[in-house]
Amino acid sequence: MSGIPLGAEIEVANLGLSLFSEAVRQQGRPAVQVDWRIPAAGDPGAVAALTRLYGRHSRSIDRANAEVARRLDEGSPKLVAIRPAAEVVPGADAKTILHCGPPIGWADMADPLKRSVRAAVMAEGWAGNPGEAERLVAGGGVRLEPANHHDAVVPMASAIGPTAPMLVVEDEAAGTRAFSSINQGPGEVPWFGRETPAAVERLVFLREVCGPLFAECLRGSGPIDIFSLASQGLQMGDDLHMRTQATTNLLIRSLLPHLLQLESPRKVDLGRFLASNHLFFLNLAMAGAKALTLWAEQVPGSSVVTTMSRNGTTYGIKLAGNDTWFITGSPPVAKAIYYADLGPEDGAGDIGDSAVLELCGLGGCATAASPAVAAFVGGTMDDAVALTRDMARVCVSASTRFKLPALQFRGTPVAVDVRKVVELGITPKVNTGILHARDGSGQVGAGVAEAPIACFRDALLELDRRLSG
Amino acid sequence: MSGIPLGAEIEVANLGLSLFSEAVRQQGRPAVQVDWRIPAAGDPGAVAALTRLYGRHSRSIDRANAEVARRLDEGSPKLVAIRPAAEVVPGADAKTILHCGPPIGWADMADPLKRSVRAAVMAEGWAGNPGEAERLVAGGGVRLEPANHHDAVVPMASAIGPTAPMLVVEDEAAGTRAFSSINQGPGEVPWFGRETPAAVERLVFLREVCGPLFAECLRGSGPIDIFSLASQGLQMGDDLHMRTQATTNLLIRSLLPHLLQLESPRKVDLGRFLASNHLFFLNLAMAGAKALTLWAEQVPGSSVVTTMSRNGTTYGIKLAGNDTWFITGSPPVAKAIYYADLGPEDGAGDIGDSAVLELCGLGGCATAASPAVAAFVGGTMDDAVALTRDMARVCVSASTRFKLPALQFRGTPVAVDVRKVVELGITPKVNTGILHARDGSGQVGAGVAEAPIACFRDALLELDRRLSG
Repeated sequence: MSGIPLGAEIEVANLGLSLFSEAVRQQGRPAVQVDWRIPAAGDPGAVAALTRLYGRHSRSIDRANAEVARRLDEGSPKLVAIRPAAEVVPGADAKTILHCGPPIGWADMADPLKRSVRAAVMAEGWAGNPGEAERLVAGGGVRLEPANHHDAVVPMASAIGPTAPMLVVEDEAAGTRAFSSINQGPGEVPWFGRETPAAVERLVFLREVCGPLFAECLRGSGPIDIFSLASQGLQMGDDLHMRTQATTNLLIRSLLPHLLQLESPRKVDLGRFLASNHLFFLNLAMAGAKALTLWAEQVPGSSVVTTMSRNGTTYGIKLAGNDTWFITGSPPVAKAIYYADLGPEDGAGDIGDSAVLELCGLGGCATAASPAVAAFVGGTMDDAVALTRDMARVCVSASTRFKLPALQFRGTPVAVDVRKVVELGITPKVNTGILHARDGSGQVGAGVAEAPIACFRDALLELDRRLSG
Repeated sequence: MSGIPLGAEIEVANLGLSLFSEAVRQQGRPAVQVDWRIPAAGDPGAVAALTRLYGRHSRSIDRANAEVARRLDEGSPKLVAIRPAAEVVPGADAKTILHCGPPIGWADMADPLKRSVRAAVMAEGWAGNPGEAERLVAGGGVRLEPANHHDAVVPMASAIGPTAPMLVVEDEAAGTRAFSSINQGPGEVPWFGRETPAAVERLVFLREVCGPLFAECLRGSGPIDIFSLASQGLQMGDDLHMRTQATTNLLIRSLLPHLLQLESPRKVDLGRFLASNHLFFLNLAMAGAKALTLWAEQVPGSSVVTTMSRNGTTYGIKLAGNDTWFITGSPPVAKAIYYADLGPEDGAGDIGDSAVLELCGLGGCATAASPAVAAFVGGTMDDAVALTRDMARVCVSASTRFKLPALQFRGTPVAVDVRKVVELGITPKVNTGILHARDGSGQVGAGVAEAPIACFRDALLELDRRLSG
C-alpha cells in the first residue's frame, strides 16, 4: 500500500492488530484503532467458562466483586504493636519458620529462600553456621510454613523465626488482624537471599534493637494509620512497592518526637538504620494490604483475586471465598534493569508476598504515581501511566484514597478480576526486586514482573465449576 | 458565521486573539493558533528599548545571560553552620533588625511586617510589650535594614534581630556566602505577622533550642548540600516554595542519627517542632538560592533578574551587574485560596524575600512538580504545567538538576530575562502565602502572586540607557 496516497474521504476503524490503522494514520487520514483480542486467546475451555461467568453468573459475581472491591478500598488498618512472632502470629510456634509464597518443601525451595531460611535458623540460635542449619532443616527439625497461612506476608525471600519482631496490624471495623516482619533494609540481608554473618546479625539487630525501640515509639505515638500515610506518600512519588521512600520519611517525621524520647544507648543505631532504609515502610504497607485481603476474602462467589504470592519456585493465587491455591511455576521478572555485569540468567524466579500490594491499588497499579519507578518501565511518565492503565483493564474499581496526579487525580485500579485477566490475557504487573538465582550475592536488579496466566486460568475454571456445578 | 458549515478544504492559521481559531475548530476543521501579542503592550519607550536590547546589544546580553543562567543552575551551596546573626551576617550589628523586601522606613511598613519587627524587638529583650517596642522603633532606637543588603533573605514578614540564629550557606566554588533565618513554623508566629506572647516565645525557642541543637546535628552530619536534597524533593511533589514537605522529610531523615545523639533535655521539643513544620526546608532553599544569585549578580551587562523581593508595601527587583533597586507598589496576591470567611479584602500586599526561589528554577517555575500546589492554580496538573510553561517563556534556560516528571523530565525554567517579561507582558509567578492586612491574625490564605510589570519596565529602560549610553 505504501506510496499510494489515500483519498481524502477515507475513514478507517480497525479491529485487532494495529499495523493497518498505523499505516492509514501515516498517510494523514483518521483511523480508529479498536484493541480487540480473541478472548482467552481462543482457549475453548476458558471461553466456555467466561461465557457462563459473564453470562448467567454475572449478576451474582458482580455483586460479590463490588463488595470485595469495597473492602479492599475502604478497610483502614492500623499498626498497633510490634511483638515476637511466637507471641502474636496464630500457629507460629517454637520451631516454625514462616516463609514467603505458596506452600513448598525444603528440597524445592529456590536458592535465595533456602539461604534466608538458614539465616533465620542461625538467628534463632538453632545452628551456628549454614551447614548446621542446612542439616537441621533438611532433617525435618524445623516446620516450614507459608506466612500467608498465618495471616502474615513477608517480602522477597524473607523467612521469619519465632523470635522475629512482627508488625501487628488491626482493622477494627473489619475485625481483621495481619502481620509482617520488619523490613531488613539494604546490604547483606536475608530477604535478598544472603546468609553471611552480617546478614544473620541484621536479624539479631531487628530483634534486639529495632523491634523493641520501634515498639516503644509506637506506644508513645499510638496506632499508625497505614493507608493514610500511604495515600500521602503516593502523592510524593511512591508506588508503595518498589519505592516507599516518601512514606517512610512521613513515618519517621511523625515518630520523631517519640524517637527523641528513647533512652536506650542503641537508639543511634536505630537512627542510622531508619535513615538508610528507603523500604522501611514496605512491610507496613504489606501488612496493611493483608488486613484488607483477609476481610475481602470472606465474601463468597467473587472472581476477585485476594491472595497473590511467590516463593521463587512457584506462583500462587487464591480467589475470595475460596481457600484453594492455584499454583504454577514462578517466571523470571519480565521487564528488568540489572546491576552492572548481571543479566536475566542471574535472576531467580519472581519471589515474595509483596504482590498483595497489587491487589489493593498499590505497586503496579500505582506506577503512574512514581517518577522513580518509571525508570524501570521505559523511562517516561507516559510509560508509567500505560502500566497503570493496563492494570485498570483487569480491575473492578478505582481507589477512593490513592489518587494519581498524572491521571487527573483518578484513583488507582483496585481488585483484580480473574475473568478480565483471562479474557484479555493481561496478568497483574508487580513492581519488584530480583535476587541472584544461585550464588547468594543478593539483589541483582529490579523491574516489573508479569504474573503467569496459568494459575489465573485454573482459578477461573474452578470458579466456573463451583458456580455452575 | 455560526450555522454555516465550513468547506472540507479550509485550513486556518490565526494570529492574536484565539476566538476565531476556536470557532473554526468547533466546526471540525484544523486551525493553527499563534499566540502573538503586541510587544510590550505597544508602549513606545519599551518597544524602542527592546529594539536595541534585542538588536545591537543582543550578542553581549545573550552572552552575559548565559553566564548568569549557568551560575544560577550550577552553583552548589551547602549549609555549613547555624550562628547568631550578629556573629556572621556582615553589618548586622547590635541594634539592627533585618527585614524582608526592599528598603522601607518604619512609617511605611505594612501591618504584618510592623508586628513582626515588634516581636523581634521583644524577643531581643529591648521591649516588654508591643507598645514599648513601637515607641523604641518609631523613635529611631533600632536600625531597620533590608536583609537583602546583608546577603540574607527572609520569608514572608520575617524580621530578624542580632541574636536570631541564622543558616549560614556557602558555595565554595562560587566564593559566596548567604544567610537566612530558621523557619518559624506554623501557628502564632511573627513571620505571619503575629506579635502575641506565643509568637515572641517561638523566636526565643529558635534562639535557645532549635538553633543550638540544629547546629550540633550539623556538626555531626557535616555540610548539607541544599540543592541535592531539593532536586530529590522536587521529584516528590515539592515546588520548594509553597510546599517543602518532601525535602524537609529528606533532611530530617538524613539528620536522624545526629538528632538521636543529642543529649539536651529540650531535644523532644525540637522533635515536635520539626515534626510539625512542613516548611522547615523553605529557608534553607532560600539561603541556597541567595548564594546562587550573589554569584550570578557579579556578571555585568545582563538582562537577567537576580533580586526579586517584597515587603508588603513595595516590590523591588535588581538586574545582574547593577545594584539599583527598581521598585513599585506591592500588589495583592492574584490567584489565591483564602481560609473560610476571609477574602481578598483581608489580604496584605505580597510580602517576603522568598521570590528569590523563582529566580533559580523553583517555586512558580517548579509548579508542574507539585500536585499539592496545583490545587492553588486551578486544581489539575495541567494547570500546574501551564504555570511552569508561562515561566519558561520569560526564562533564559532550563535547570539541569530540577527535573519535571510531568514534562518528560525537562528542567524547570531558570533565569528570568527582563526583556522577555516586558516584551510578552508575562511577569514571574510566585507561589506564596497571604497575611492579614490589618488585624495581626496571621495567614489568611495562599496562592500565586504575579509580579507587577512596572519595576521590570523600569529595569529594562535603565539597562537600555546603561548599554546604549
